[in-house]
Amino acid sequence: MCRFVAYIGKPIMMYDLLFKQKNSLIKQSVKANEMEEPLNGDGFGVGWYTPEANDMPGLFVSVRPAWNDRNLKYIAPKIVSDCLFAHVRAATESPVNELNCHPFHYGQFLFMHNGDIEGFQKIKREMIRHLPDNIYANILGLTDSEHLFALFLHQMEKLQNENDLPTRMANALENSIVEVEEIKARLKMKDPSYINVCVTNGDTIVAVRYVSDLSLPASTLYYTEGAVYTCENGICKMEKSKDKTRNAVLIVSEKLNSRRSDWKPVPVNHIITVNRDLEINVTVCQRTLKVQA
Amino acid sequence: MCRFVAYIGKPIMMYDLLFKQKNSLIKQSVKANEMEEPLNGDGFGVGWYTPEANDMPGLFVSVRPAWNDRNLKYIAPKIVSDCLFAHVRAATESPVNELNCHPFHYGQFLFMHNGDIEGFQKIKREMIRHLPDNIYANILGLTDSEHLFALFLHQMEKLQNENDLPTRMANALENSIVEVEEIKARLKMKDPSYINVCVTNGDTIVAVRYVSDLSLPASTLYYTEGAVYTCENGICKMEKSKDKTRNAVLIVSEKLNSRRSDWKPVPVNHIITVNRDLEINVTVCQRTLKVQA
Amino acid sequence: MCRFVAYIGKPIMMYDLLFKQKNSLIKQSVKANEMEEPLNGDGFGVGWYTPEANDMPGLFVSVRPAWNDRNLKYIAPKIVSDCLFAHVRAATESPVNELNCHPFHYGQFLFMHNGDIEGFQKIKREMIRHLPDNIYANILGLTDSEHLFALFLHQMEKLQNENDLPTRMANALENSIVEVEEIKARLKMKDPSYINVCVTNGDTIVAVRYVSDLSLPASTLYYTEGAVYTCENGICKMEKSKDKTRNAVLIVSEKLNSRRSDWKPVPVNHIITVNRDLEINVTVCQRTLKVQA
Amino acid sequence: MCRFVAYIGKPIMMYDLLFKQKNSLIKQSVKANEMEEPLNGDGFGVGWYTPEANDMPGLFVSVRPAWNDRNLKYIAPKIVSDCLFAHVRAATESPVNELNCHPFHYGQFLFMHNGDIEGFQKIKREMIRHLPDNIYANILGLTDSEHLFALFLHQMEKLQNENDLPTRMANALENSIVEVEEIKARLKMKDPSYINVCVTNGDTIVAVRYVSDLSLPASTLYYTEGAVYTCENGICKMEKSKDKTRNAVLIVSEKLNSRRSDWKPVPVNHIITVNRDLEINVTVCQRTLKVQA
Repeated sequence: MCRFVAYIGKPIMMYDLLFKQKNSLIKQSVKANEMEEPLNGDGFGVGWYTPEANDMPGLFVSVRPAWNDRNLKYIAPKIVSDCLFAHVRAATESPVNELNCHPFHYGQFLFMHNGDIEGFQKIKREMIRHLPDNIYANILGLTDSEHLFALFLHQMEKLQNENDLPTRMANALENSIVEVEEIKARLKMKDPSYINVCVTNGDTIVAVRYVSDLSLPASTLYYTEGAVYTCENGICKMEKSKDKTRNAVLIVSEKLNSRRSDWKPVPVNHIITVNRDLEINVTVCQRTLKVQA
Repeated sequence: MCRFVAYIGKPIMMYDLLFKQKNSLIKQSVKANEMEEPLNGDGFGVGWYTPEANDMPGLFVSVRPAWNDRNLKYIAPKIVSDCLFAHVRAATESPVNELNCHPFHYGQFLFMHNGDIEGFQKIKREMIRHLPDNIYANILGLTDSEHLFALFLHQMEKLQNENDLPTRMANALENSIVEVEEIKARLKMKDPSYINVCVTNGDTIVAVRYVSDLSLPASTLYYTEGAVYTCENGICKMEKSKDKTRNAVLIVSEKLNSRRSDWKPVPVNHIITVNRDLEINVTVCQRTLKVQA
Repeated sequence: MCRFVAYIGKPIMMYDLLFKQKNSLIKQSVKANEMEEPLNGDGFGVGWYTPEANDMPGLFVSVRPAWNDRNLKYIAPKIVSDCLFAHVRAATESPVNELNCHPFHYGQFLFMHNGDIEGFQKIKREMIRHLPDNIYANILGLTDSEHLFALFLHQMEKLQNENDLPTRMANALENSIVEVEEIKARLKMKDPSYINVCVTNGDTIVAVRYVSDLSLPASTLYYTEGAVYTCENGICKMEKSKDKTRNAVLIVSEKLNSRRSDWKPVPVNHIITVNRDLEINVTVCQRTLKVQA
Repeated sequence: MCRFVAYIGKPIMMYDLLFKQKNSLIKQSVKANEMEEPLNGDGFGVGWYTPEANDMPGLFVSVRPAWNDRNLKYIAPKIVSDCLFAHVRAATESPVNELNCHPFHYGQFLFMHNGDIEGFQKIKREMIRHLPDNIYANILGLTDSEHLFALFLHQMEKLQNENDLPTRMANALENSIVEVEEIKARLKMKDPSYINVCVTNGDTIVAVRYVSDLSLPASTLYYTEGAVYTCENGICKMEKSKDKTRNAVLIVSEKLNSRRSDWKPVPVNHIITVNRDLEINVTVCQRTLKVQA
């Protein structure tokens, strides 16, 4: 089902985020805590923004396990960024392949997913049918995740009159899930969808924790925020400031350490947005609720 | 535009076929003779049949160049087979990726392509629209070639009443090209198609040399046949027998040595079939001619 | 510490050996039972003999985990062999790299190791100092295992007057361990060695279960033998014959299923040889005992 | 024989340096101009410094050809650095392998080589015999280049009383070549050495153009310098300033464009140093001359 971390805020070093935490993403690639099957060894990917170079994200993916990748060990200490995505994969149906590694990229956007749209193969052609050529041509792999990303990109185009970017991204994400559910309903499919997704353009992050059938256990999703994310002597933490200044937000598939109080769960079927001022907004998924009702 | 070789007949060692000839496929990966751009370094693949083990083909593909692949050097001397396919790739539009390496596989079939369906991205969704789920699900990569293979497999299903397998395969191959041309015509596309394709089920090979516009230069395609294909002291040749016994047929993108007399060109827009008795049949592409007319 | 299987006897399909058993080597790559750290995801390798093609072994290695390797899934069903080696790696000190994947190859020999020569880096140059050029040039990677193989090959040359091949191989293997221990003693090193090694020339297998300090726990090593190794409906077993005919021997790092009675442990600091008539001989390591005393 | 580029000066984007020039290093990977065998498709590597992150270099290497590497295309536009090394490989004796890709790394140093120490296999053990453990342990691959780097590192330790870093690096480099020649002389070997090497610690670059036998053609080596290295509309050039300010120096295996006047050849058996003030010094190899005499 994969694991991911997303960071936005004061620039940090990718190495600190990926390697140093007690239950860092790299450790989760070997043995995740909050999954039934703990192994996430089917490739990985990292994406990042360095606005001083240009607007487009950098990207590095590999089919090799994250825990022992020499290039990653050399690259991660050189990337200092204010917006970082990282993902370790446990392949479900699609082959282990670079083009199936998250995060996926289009224009300024990065997108990653931890979950499973069951029955995806049966709805795949319906999902791509109405995509504009440019967005369709951007699908390079076979995952449900990348196809959901394509729906999101299409929704972003449809919602171009919405001026507030975080709202537009949140609505586009919800709409793309609604599209999936509508296709399934049309085909009378009862297969559940587990969709924990995170998307960014480099200065706004939107993530959702969604399960199509509320009687089923949604995958975990947490966030934490503070004055600064620090790593010293191998211990990383999100430090709180007295004046409540917020300079760093982290969204993660599972807790990076055992201090439960540090991590706030995103409620099931809620969407979280973090805008460029690092304001956090957690709201219920209204649009999908309607389909589920 | 890629290069390939296909062999059927008395069992031979894959190493002899791929490495020993003066202008062997491995040498063509570095520098092909009959192409404008001589480099074919964007991955490779080999497929083979060993009926004594089972009916399904073996397959080994890699994104690394064929000329220096350690695994291939170890595997090729251990494969002795009566039906071998091998392909070196020069990527055009699709990324260098294992899932884009030829030959492609489905059930008993292997399929490889040297050419380019120009404008493919624009007709891709039309090509997959009517495929049965099982055949659609078998498309793992992004190439025009693999999508053409899917059309071929669908045509094979449609022609199931045709009892003669070589005829059925030849018609299915032609029909799949006709489908491509019809989609292009419907979309008023003038982009040319260069389609040199080779397909086998392990005991019959069908190949076609096709260009959609006869004023354009088709890619080369040759065949040779004889009593036995031998490799001694680094020199390989197809030996002729006095009694005209035929025990080996080779179909190739370009000549493997400089003895012109050894290699018969397949005429443009002709189809060649080699059946399980190694009977060779070269006929004009009637079905595509109608579309072109 | 890695896991391996070695088979000799009536030809079997590699796929059956690697994939079908309840606790098959492929499953051990995800989660081994008899190891503290269960993951063996740092690459893998398979080697095999097909005397009808030639005397040299075939070899296929990859840095990707064995559990999801597409090439392996295609190759394994096509290899039918009377002598098979397979290894999944848990890297200790040396990087994950193809040249560090077992089995290692020289001439007719394949060699694989499950263990750790602690302090190896300190004795490495002593180990290579007296090697003949041809054997030294064959060291391509960084592992203690491959360097031990080089000592073995050198010992084989030294013991060329020993006419009985199984004896020669067993003595060469023991001598190479003695060499390691002598170097360590000379350098006053107390670091322990855990050496479970398996070597073959295609018709004789020699394996050892060795730990330098008998108060430490040796890695596990088992063997089983019978009339035939069969796989039906996903269940594999070594079948016994009434007349005690032996046609198959298997040597493994850990038990492939839970029927304890099937698996005989090789005693600690013993060496097992299986000759071309499949006669099994288990003897104490006399030569190393002397060094340990 | 490989190709490389080294840049030091005002920060530039790696993408501009590697991809945009008419005869850029990426184009040289397909078809180099100033080599007999034009293909450099056996892997590549890039190294860079970003002092604002830390002193250590970043590194990214791959066995895949540079011309079509998706990760490189994503990473190169995100790296803005004042000291960049890049190398495309044409393997001679050592296998295509990540650990044989240049640049090589130790501490603050990066090192790359274009050339061939013929007979290397025969002198390899002599080259490593006297290395300190830490430097010996840093040799991960099989190339003559990496072994020469080890000699250089050892010489750097020996010359620690030399306070001027450029002088110390230049002398260490020359001494390491002298060591190679002395070993060959001792073993009565006549095999020639072609050694074009480039080494940096991030603020000083030293390179040498060396051939052991002056009657043989040394590999090419050029440099260019100017006020700024710019890339606009796909055209890159080193711009000269009126006041002779020097802000950028480039050292290359072959000319990156056809304007001959831009490129000054480093004379055969000369050494070039560029210090942190970008002062350039080209001197004859005194030390090796003595050995050659």
